[in-house]
Amino acid sequence: MAAVNVCIAGAGTIGSLLAGHLGRVADVSVLVRRREHADALNREGLRVSGRADFTARVTAATDPADLPAPELVIIACKGSDLGDVAGRLEGEFDGATVMTIQNGLGAEDVVGARGHWPLLSSVTFMSGTRHSDTHVEYILDTATWIGPNRGTTPADARAVADLLVSSGLKAQPFDDLRPAQWSKLIFNATVNGVAALTGLPHDGHFSDSGPLGELVHALMDEGKAAAAAAGVELDEDPWQMNVLATQRGSRHSPSMLEDVRAARTTEVELINGSLVRSAREHGVPVPLQETVYSLVRGKEASYS
Amino acid sequence: MAAVNVCIAGAGTIGSLLAGHLGRVADVSVLVRRREHADALNREGLRVSGRADFTARVTAATDPADLPAPELVIIACKGSDLGDVAGRLEGEFDGATVMTIQNGLGAEDVVGARGHWPLLSSVTFMSGTRHSDTHVEYILDTATWIGPNRGTTPADARAVADLLVSSGLKAQPFDDLRPAQWSKLIFNATVNGVAALTGLPHDGHFSDSGPLGELVHALMDEGKAAAAAAGVELDEDPWQMNVLATQRGSRHSPSMLEDVRAARTTEVELINGSLVRSAREHGVPVPLQETVYSLVRGKEASYS
Repeated sequence: MAAVNVCIAGAGTIGSLLAGHLGRVADVSVLVRRREHADALNREGLRVSGRADFTARVTAATDPADLPAPELVIIACKGSDLGDVAGRLEGEFDGATVMTIQNGLGAEDVVGARGHWPLLSSVTFMSGTRHSDTHVEYILDTATWIGPNRGTTPADARAVADLLVSSGLKAQPFDDLRPAQWSKLIFNATVNGVAALTGLPHDGHFSDSGPLGELVHALMDEGKAAAAAAGVELDEDPWQMNVLATQRGSRHSPSMLEDVRAARTTEVELINGSLVRSAREHGVPVPLQETVYSLVRGKEASYS
Repeated sequence: MAAVNVCIAGAGTIGSLLAGHLGRVADVSVLVRRREHADALNREGLRVSGRADFTARVTAATDPADLPAPELVIIACKGSDLGDVAGRLEGEFDGATVMTIQNGLGAEDVVGARGHWPLLSSVTFMSGTRHSDTHVEYILDTATWIGPNRGTTPADARAVADLLVSSGLKAQPFDDLRPAQWSKLIFNATVNGVAALTGLPHDGHFSDSGPLGELVHALMDEGKAAAAAAGVELDEDPWQMNVLATQRGSRHSPSMLEDVRAARTTEVELINGSLVRSAREHGVPVPLQETVYSLVRGKEASYS
């Protein structure tokens, strides 16, 4: 089979994990923001350590026009950078299929507004630590879930899932991603929001019978009502996801907590904001999620 | 008139302002926790600067048994220390009237459980900065409001208000303090809670038309409903208090924000907790106040 050309737009942790692994089975180009980042990747390649250990050759640039034409683009930036990255792709990569992988809802709409590419949706549960511009550690080897969106079919989602699996990552295709996307959305809106506001890592306080566990439960009940109103039957119960994760004792610091600790813009718009907007659209009251959303927005306003 | 004996229990900012001023018109004793604090006060007196400038003689000790018998005790510690301080007064100061000045609701009940003293209620709006154990700066010369409680009459509240006024402080007696106490309770639960969770000082975000201003408005509406259910007609509209304070442009850091910044136990139980409990008792749903309460509790849990 002829090598596939894949472009990874954004090389943070998830982008680097994708680019490194796919570099073993495809011609991988990487679109980055900083010139030094591109130079280092072109010179040294991309090292993956942890659950694997190899270095992949990749072609990197700061301008999409300097990259080979891809068949597949995976936009792997953070949700808060999505508008920016999508804007840089406008008018480029005609004929490519573009896949989003951001948390929350609506990433496909942001990208779709910038070009006529066929779109795929995905959510990922893998994680890692980015040690440098050219070295990422693969830590949690959980799956990336892929589903069709505008102009694509379940077969397209299966093909990309197969490609990821052939590169050493875990992936699963879905005929309809929304049930999985919404399960993760409700989980993320609640766990990330509560962690960002309290400063707590995702620990037993989120699932015990104290006031915080009760709040988490109530927030997830609101999310489930919003999903039902949007016509989505959840893939997994987000409360069960929460209980399992805290029982594992990971005490993971959710990304939104990391963001507020570093006074960075969070993904609250794409996560909590999209949940709240969908609920409003369908006339479902979600007062607690609105409260968390407004408080995290207030937290962001406190940086300046 | 014979000099009144007044004991101030707790010499933080408010306690020091009271002890210093009252030292000019009464025999003032001060109950403190630390031996060095007592020694310094006995040696140097208590200096008040800012809106006034004088040093008052006071008698200080760490054990109530070492202090002269007072006619009036003002418990001026923070709400989070109230149980502790009230416990130390148990069995002491028979015949004294005891006045609480803590934020929130229920301070009188905590104290009343420890002795049969007649009780007065008060809330204070004055503020200052405590520069050392023996020096406090008087900054905001707003009033202390005083009302009768168990075993006291409006005349008793007037007598104490007169004493405070004669010492250079502002004070106002009320026949029923609850309307004022509830106005301040709703204001404090909302402004302190939102500030503690967002890291914002009390600024325009709390009263503008953005998501945070809307949240503050909704929190206050819940508080008003809880007050109405408790049979209290508010003295002032807490939303108007909020608008006025933010228009003044003070950007004041509420004490609960200072507490979470310093990883100290907050007054959330006496403030937000008492509002939530009163609302539950009267069957009034206050989901947003419950959310703020649970999140601040979570914040406290994150310290350890």
